Formats: sequence, C-alpha cells, structure tokens
Amino acid sequence: MGRWEPDTPGRLAKAALDLYRERGYEQTTVAEIAGRAGLTERTFFRHYADKREVLFAGSALLQEAFVAAVTGAPASAGPMRAVAAGLDAAAKLFTGRREFARERHAVITANSDLLERELIKLATLSAAVLAALRDRGVPEPAATVTAEAGVAVFKAGFERWVAAEESRDLPELIRDTLDTLGAVVADGS
Amino acid sequence: MGRWEPDTPGRLAKAALDLYRERGYEQTTVAEIAGRAGLTERTFFRHYADKREVLFAGSALLQEAFVAAVTGAPASAGPMRAVAAGLDAAAKLFTGRREFARERHAVITANSDLLERELIKLATLSAAVLAALRDRGVPEPAATVTAEAGVAVFKAGFERWVAAEESRDLPELIRDTLDTLGAVVADGS
Repeated sequence: MGRWEPDTPGRLAKAALDLYRERGYEQTTVAEIAGRAGLTERTFFRHYADKREVLFAGSALLQEAFVAAVTGAPASAGPMRAVAAGLDAAAKLFTGRREFARERHAVITANSDLLERELIKLATLSAAVLAALRDRGVPEPAATVTAEAGVAVFKAGFERWVAAEESRDLPELIRDTLDTLGAVVADGS
Repeated sequence: MGRWEPDTPGRLAKAALDLYRERGYEQTTVAEIAGRAGLTERTFFRHYADKREVLFAGSALLQEAFVAAVTGAPASAGPMRAVAAGLDAAAKLFTGRREFARERHAVITANSDLLERELIKLATLSAAVLAALRDRGVPEPAATVTAEAGVAVFKAGFERWVAAEESRDLPELIRDTLDTLGAVVADGS
C-alpha cells in the first residue's frame, strides 16, 4: 500500500478513541494520536482543529442528513412528522457504528470538556432543525418546541442505543422513543 | 447604613450584568464588578467561584423548586403531569425578574463561554428531574424522555418570555409551550 491511505479522518478518530480509553483524554497528545494512526501531526491538523474535535467528526454529517430530511418531507406533513423523518435519516447514519459509538460515549461522559462540546453540538443541531422548520413555514412556538423535542428524542434514543444491554438498532429505538414521548404527553394533558 | 448590606449576591450580579453590557464580558474583571457594587474582590469570591458563575446564581434554586414539585406531585400523576408541576414551580420563581432576565439573556447569547455554561446548567437540571422521576417509579424510557422534553419546554418558554414583544408572564408561557408540545406531538403520531 502506498502513502495514500483511505479514510484518514476515520483512522485518526479510532486512534484517538483508543488512546483516550487507555490513558485518559487529558493525558493524550495530538502527536500520540497521529503516531498511533501512523500519520503526522500535520495530517491530524488538516482534518481536525484539536483533540476534542476528533470525536465530533460526524456532527456535521448528522446535521446535514437531519435537516435535508426535514426540508424534504412532504409539504402536507406537520412539524413533528417532518422532524420524525429527520430523526430517521440521522439514525440510519449510525448503521454498523455501535461499538465505536459506545466507546465514544463512555469517553465523553467521563470528561466535562467533551461533555460541553457534545451539548454545544446538540444545541447547534437544534438551531439547524429550527431553521429548517421555519423554512417550511412552521410558526412559533411550534417550530422551537418541535426542534427542541426532536433533539431531546434523538439524545434519549441514542443513550438507549449505546446502553450495554440494548440490541435493537438506532432507527427502531428512536421511533420507540418518539412513541414514548407521544404517550407521556397525551397522558399529561 | 452600616457595613452590612442586604442581598450582597444580588448586588454583585447586577453590577456584573451592567458591566458585561457596557464593556463586554471578556473585558470585565472581578475587581471591577466588586468595585461597581461597592464591595471587595474577597467578598465576590465568598459568593461566586468566577465571573461566569455570577450570572448563574439562580440555577440551584430553580433546580430545587423544579425537583421538589416533581417529587411532591400526587402519586396518581403520570410523569408529564409531575413535570408540569415542576415547570410551574420553577416559572413562578421569576416573578418580577423579567428585566434582569432579558439583559442576562442578551449577554449570555452573545458569548460562547456563557452559552456553554447555560447548556451545562440545563443538562444538570434535566439529570436532576430524571432522578426525581425515577424516584417516583417512572420506568425508562418514559423517565428520560419526559425529563428531556420538560427541560426543552422550559427553555422554549423562557426564550419566549425574554423576547422583546412578549408581555405574558412566564408561568403562562410555559403552560402554553407545554400545550403546543401536546398539539405537535398529537399531530405527528
């Protein structure tokens, strides 16, 4: 194999995650991550701004898929149906990635710095979904409430998916979480 | 008036907010905040860990009121009704504080450091509400979904309350936001 290798960002992310689990996030340097992946620091910085960002490479793709599905939902669909389409499209991106997601989740929840970044990514996702709903003509407060609730469902469904005892796939768990929201809301009103 | 003054934390918070608005958050020092309030830096640090925390003095009280109401809701109440009681108790704490809340909101949304702290406080609130729901015997995933949705309603209702054109009070706006969630969820299922 020549110097060019496929999926450099993916190799860096895997190397970073392995090192964060072995030595801890704080104790790991960018040089060590690059070394573990058989790459240079310079290559690392071509793909990621810092050692935090390496765990959030998927956020932009997730947001794009979510927003595209909200935007592309039939004009007749209400805001929650459009968001359900977005949730499903986002969930399907994680097929085959459960082991990585589980390890990543364990590292993130153990570090307040990483947890902050995760919360910011979710808030950014919520703002993007809100913008997509507004573009569909959804008025306030329905647009904000639906965007926030949709991201809450994603977060709760994702947490179920990475739980050790869970075997159902992410799209199924997200649908089930959305149904649960429907049931608790109906019961509370 | 003697050296003792009532509501030292409140005076420090008001002085900090005024300075953040006049000069910007980054440019303001703890010494300046204390000076503006007619107090010493030492007094500042008896009440707040840093100049970020001065804007989040109310978070612990908000969480206590929210959780106490969830815990104290009738045993017959489902999770969303218990959370609705928590939302109402939390909203009532803000009576007479709208002007401060508006100015604070403007400062926070203009600064990523403060916005991060706000997101962490909301995540902490959600975790506390989740624990209170579990103590009531609410199973998963209903407990997580209800806690996340409840905090999403609080956030959306609060944003409506601090909007310039809005005159309804916070408890009313939170109730209306909860009703909106009920409507969009019913329409989407």
